[in-house]
Amino acid sequence: MAPPVTLREALNAIEACLAKAAEQGTNHIITIVDRGGHTLAQARMDKAIRASIIISQNKAVTAVLADMPTHYLAEACLPGGELYGCQESSCGNLVIFGGGFPITRDGEIVGGIGVSGGSVAEDMAVAEAGLGVLQ
Amino acid sequence: MAPPVTLREALNAIEACLAKAAEQGTNHIITIVDRGGHTLAQARMDKAIRASIIISQNKAVTAVLADMPTHYLAEACLPGGELYGCQESSCGNLVIFGGGFPITRDGEIVGGIGVSGGSVAEDMAVAEAGLGVLQ
Amino acid sequence: MAPPVTLREALNAIEACLAKAAEQGTNHIITIVDRGGHTLAQARMDKAIRASIIISQNKAVTAVLADMPTHYLAEACLPGGELYGCQESSCGNLVIFGGGFPITRDGEIVGGIGVSGGSVAEDMAVAEAGLGVLQ
Amino acid sequence: MAPPVTLREALNAIEACLAKAAEQGTNHIITIVDRGGHTLAQARMDKAIRASIIISQNKAVTAVLADMPTHYLAEACLPGGELYGCQESSCGNLVIFGGGFPITRDGEIVGGIGVSGGSVAEDMAVAEAGLGVLQ
Repeated sequence: MAPPVTLREALNAIEACLAKAAEQGTNHIITIVDRGGHTLAQARMDKAIRASIIISQNKAVTAVLADMPTHYLAEACLPGGELYGCQESSCGNLVIFGGGFPITRDGEIVGGIGVSGGSVAEDMAVAEAGLGVLQ
Repeated sequence: MAPPVTLREALNAIEACLAKAAEQGTNHIITIVDRGGHTLAQARMDKAIRASIIISQNKAVTAVLADMPTHYLAEACLPGGELYGCQESSCGNLVIFGGGFPITRDGEIVGGIGVSGGSVAEDMAVAEAGLGVLQ
Repeated sequence: MAPPVTLREALNAIEACLAKAAEQGTNHIITIVDRGGHTLAQARMDKAIRASIIISQNKAVTAVLADMPTHYLAEACLPGGELYGCQESSCGNLVIFGGGFPITRDGEIVGGIGVSGGSVAEDMAVAEAGLGVLQ
Repeated sequence: MAPPVTLREALNAIEACLAKAAEQGTNHIITIVDRGGHTLAQARMDKAIRASIIISQNKAVTAVLADMPTHYLAEACLPGGELYGCQESSCGNLVIFGGGFPITRDGEIVGGIGVSGGSVAEDMAVAEAGLGVLQ
């Protein structure tokens, strides 16, 4: 079984995320959760909007409970799509736009990372910087 | 008055659902609720994604509180449709895509079944297998 | 790493719980969750009160997130005890009376079982019957 | 106006908390919030129980919203005390035992720190180590 993400690894990943954000000149909240969706570490950059704290968290949880990056869910949830409506509370705080990724080790999902506060492309780039450290 | 669904019947229905799922090679969560929308039994297959637990539950509750299968609600909730917006939290965690059915006995609704975790068609087929035992 | 609880094992444990309850002449809700606190299976006996569904669930989740049986928490939460007040919502739906147990395999916690609906002693006896199958 | 706590300061405080915890041989969750009670940073040590994540958060929020350390509230909330009942959900997730402190600069409260996972004395010692960096 693949080793779980440690707090030290999560804090290192947050540093990698902060470096990427500085490079982009963007502001984000970063959340890293374990396989069960429970927070390991969270950080909010000084200029990131506070409304995005919960989105960052829910992106990380969605990725780990749905076993897929959050942007995979977007198309199915468009009007007329198979899961239209699944973006709502009835589906348990799922986030269906990009910025949430499962953390995979040896082909196994061991946690999730969620980044919010910027555009989807900026959030995804920051999350991928964190993933580079974690897997 | 039609007899209520017993726990034993609900557990038997879950077995029928599991058999159908095995036949399809799909993974699901199954929830069976009573006339009041309160859970009688729930089961999550080993490979079903955990994000679907709450969806399964909400499908069963939607079917029994709306007196109709959940897929009947999808069209009315599209942009421009009469119930557009009703998938929101203000309408109480309704699920508006297929996989939730009322359980009917002697023309009376006595409970609901909700299945999630697969495609809508797969979920509906599994729910119908459970309904076959229950009504 | 110890093997996770399967759905089949959880359903077998529920049958053991139901047998113990029948022997006692008591009525319960039984919930079995995985290591992350996510439901594997739940069953409500026909005469069990519905108010206990959520208590059963929260007992199972408390046991697995606090790494201890729920009755261990009771004394510390008495007036004047170190954790007095921790039974409240501020502590995230912890249950501090008996009926919730971690499921342990090879010295590792792999899930939780929560039983509610009877007296604490009755709930604990039913939960222990389920544990006998699971660990 | 006193300067707000920055993310870098919060991460440094978390390192001071981790050092104190290592010295004690204890395991904790640490949360640091801003003046509005919104999370700046959170960290869960590898062996800390997950039930304490929300307690850590609520301790930090209680300290900053009540303008006092959380252990000041315990006595008033005992049966017969002036605030008896205020630990309930009706009072907004207040935690009334030690481990939460306001962060003060130039006599002004600029944030809060909440530590959970150990005994109250251990939690308070770890929180004070973090405070040493922050104020």
